[in-house]
Amino acid sequence: MSSSKRFQSLSSAITKLHVDYLLITHLPNIRYLCGFTGSAGALLVGGEPVFFTDGRYTEQAHKEVFGARVLIGKKPPLPAAVEWLKRKRAGKLGIEGDHMTVAAEARLRALLPRSWRPRPTSGVVERQRMIKDAGEAELLRRAVNLGSSLFKPILKALRPGVPETAVAAKLEFAARQAGAEGMSFDTIIAAGPRSALPHGRASATPIPRQGFVVLDFGVILAGYCSDMTRTVALGRPSAKERGWYDAVLDAQLAGIAAVRPGVTAGEVDEAARKVLKRNKLAKYYTHSTGHGVGLEIHESPRLAAGETTVLEPGMVLTIEPGVYVPGQGGVRIEDMILVTKTGCDVLTPTTKELITVSHTA
Amino acid sequence: MSSSKRFQSLSSAITKLHVDYLLITHLPNIRYLCGFTGSAGALLVGGEPVFFTDGRYTEQAHKEVFGARVLIGKKPPLPAAVEWLKRKRAGKLGIEGDHMTVAAEARLRALLPRSWRPRPTSGVVERQRMIKDAGEAELLRRAVNLGSSLFKPILKALRPGVPETAVAAKLEFAARQAGAEGMSFDTIIAAGPRSALPHGRASATPIPRQGFVVLDFGVILAGYCSDMTRTVALGRPSAKERGWYDAVLDAQLAGIAAVRPGVTAGEVDEAARKVLKRNKLAKYYTHSTGHGVGLEIHESPRLAAGETTVLEPGMVLTIEPGVYVPGQGGVRIEDMILVTKTGCDVLTPTTKELITVSHTA
Repeated sequence: MSSSKRFQSLSSAITKLHVDYLLITHLPNIRYLCGFTGSAGALLVGGEPVFFTDGRYTEQAHKEVFGARVLIGKKPPLPAAVEWLKRKRAGKLGIEGDHMTVAAEARLRALLPRSWRPRPTSGVVERQRMIKDAGEAELLRRAVNLGSSLFKPILKALRPGVPETAVAAKLEFAARQAGAEGMSFDTIIAAGPRSALPHGRASATPIPRQGFVVLDFGVILAGYCSDMTRTVALGRPSAKERGWYDAVLDAQLAGIAAVRPGVTAGEVDEAARKVLKRNKLAKYYTHSTGHGVGLEIHESPRLAAGETTVLEPGMVLTIEPGVYVPGQGGVRIEDMILVTKTGCDVLTPTTKELITVSHTA
Repeated sequence: MSSSKRFQSLSSAITKLHVDYLLITHLPNIRYLCGFTGSAGALLVGGEPVFFTDGRYTEQAHKEVFGARVLIGKKPPLPAAVEWLKRKRAGKLGIEGDHMTVAAEARLRALLPRSWRPRPTSGVVERQRMIKDAGEAELLRRAVNLGSSLFKPILKALRPGVPETAVAAKLEFAARQAGAEGMSFDTIIAAGPRSALPHGRASATPIPRQGFVVLDFGVILAGYCSDMTRTVALGRPSAKERGWYDAVLDAQLAGIAAVRPGVTAGEVDEAARKVLKRNKLAKYYTHSTGHGVGLEIHESPRLAAGETTVLEPGMVLTIEPGVYVPGQGGVRIEDMILVTKTGCDVLTPTTKELITVSHTA
């Protein structure tokens, strides 16, 4: 979808908000709408879109921005946008309340003529970004494929005594070598008892001889994020551990099976959670079932209990239930999926059979 | 300095603000005051400090937090803090206006009894954080030394035809192997004409045979950031290029020489800028001279024209003038320095003589 189509869809949303202009300051929203990837800018939408940045970004803005007029200000983007607004008839100016700070809003109010009042809006561009167009879906597919290609090779690094951080370092190096712009979040390598920490960022702890290792990582490619989790066993898992794994896998498959247009985000969460309840593991499932992914690693919707957002074709989501038994170990399995007209495509091509890593060292 | 000393200093600042409590939500400020490194929390200071987080962080909060009471809420940290405040006498609640979003402030106001009014404050903890205590200075020294140790070895990777991103990948891998928790910002490797971009994040562009390469990078160690820049020449620099280099080095040394307690941040900027003016290069010096560094890569004060903050012993700053000639090339040289009682210590141990990288390939 072209940038101008994105601006068109946004226009009708703005009309419904009863504001004359929307001032967009959240950088991923700016990138989505007009292509700018720098770190200082503001986009004013209402009439013809105008993008404001400063002299450091002259070359970059002219190269990247499309669908909006580029104005390079001597002032920072916000004051420059206000100057521009002063020449317009006074009215209502929407701001992004989820992103603008209280201090920035106060500065904006002080600069604006009294006749212009900033009015907080919430999630306007984010709601549009929930539905990925064909170009975005393709970029997400590429990011997912790059991420997945790193999984099998990194298992060789899981040797007893090697610190989790060294495994993360190798994974991140391989990602960069494969062309990733960076990782989409702090790599999680959580081994042995640490696999029971849902947020087990790689630490100095050495890989043990036994237990689970949770590997949760993602790459950024052309601005789009990937996100996947696999859990592998060091040596033969016990019957209890095998039980956790099978239950989480069943829950993950049930989550995927529940995805189709018309279903709510909360219903997908419930479908996965029910399987863990049946296995008497629900109390060890301490987080929600997934989230949207795109230019940001965490986007709308949240797949959590009670969430009423209705799924639509084009949404790209993670499905990632887990079980975390404190002091013992944990399992999480996560794919990215694309909601289609009739159900969903699983984007992550990596096997979900339990892999056992054995070392004779 | 112990956490309780940090709370004591903050208490007197709070008294001057005429608020009864200050609600701290900016994570680096929370980490500075009470040690918590997780990603969800709120700290209420005024009486006995109270730290709020949720069930995911139970173990971590009890392990990390010192100097504050830990309350694990069933609710997210903000509503939990409000519940706690409801039991207190009504009064004035300071919030961090530079960090809290308009939407979060509206939610807070809706939850608070009418008798409590949130009142935006600015830079309260940040002003305290400008002055590093002995423990912090030592951690910054270690981060700087780790960062600097990566410089010489990475020069071997600067071979014609190698993409800038591959150089960045090697540098970041070496950083991880040396124990860094991560990089403190996106690594800048900007070669040939790209060296004229002040923000030249490593790109797919191959290293050319001639011209400058700007390497600007930093590591995170125990939460503290390093930041350094060196510019090297590929093959013999022209007389004009040599002139740019010498002028930037003179400007950098002049900036360092200007640093001592009692001088303003603006005066340090002026000292460096004057040298480039004398060399008729001032128009190519398009940014400010430096910034504070600590738990965040960009902290107060800014060393920029007109900044009136007075330097004090314990501040850790970058001094980083540069010259950027569009389409041709650029030079930047950056050290981290510690303001002492009589002047400053240069923390970055790496040579600033111009290094020429030659390849016979």
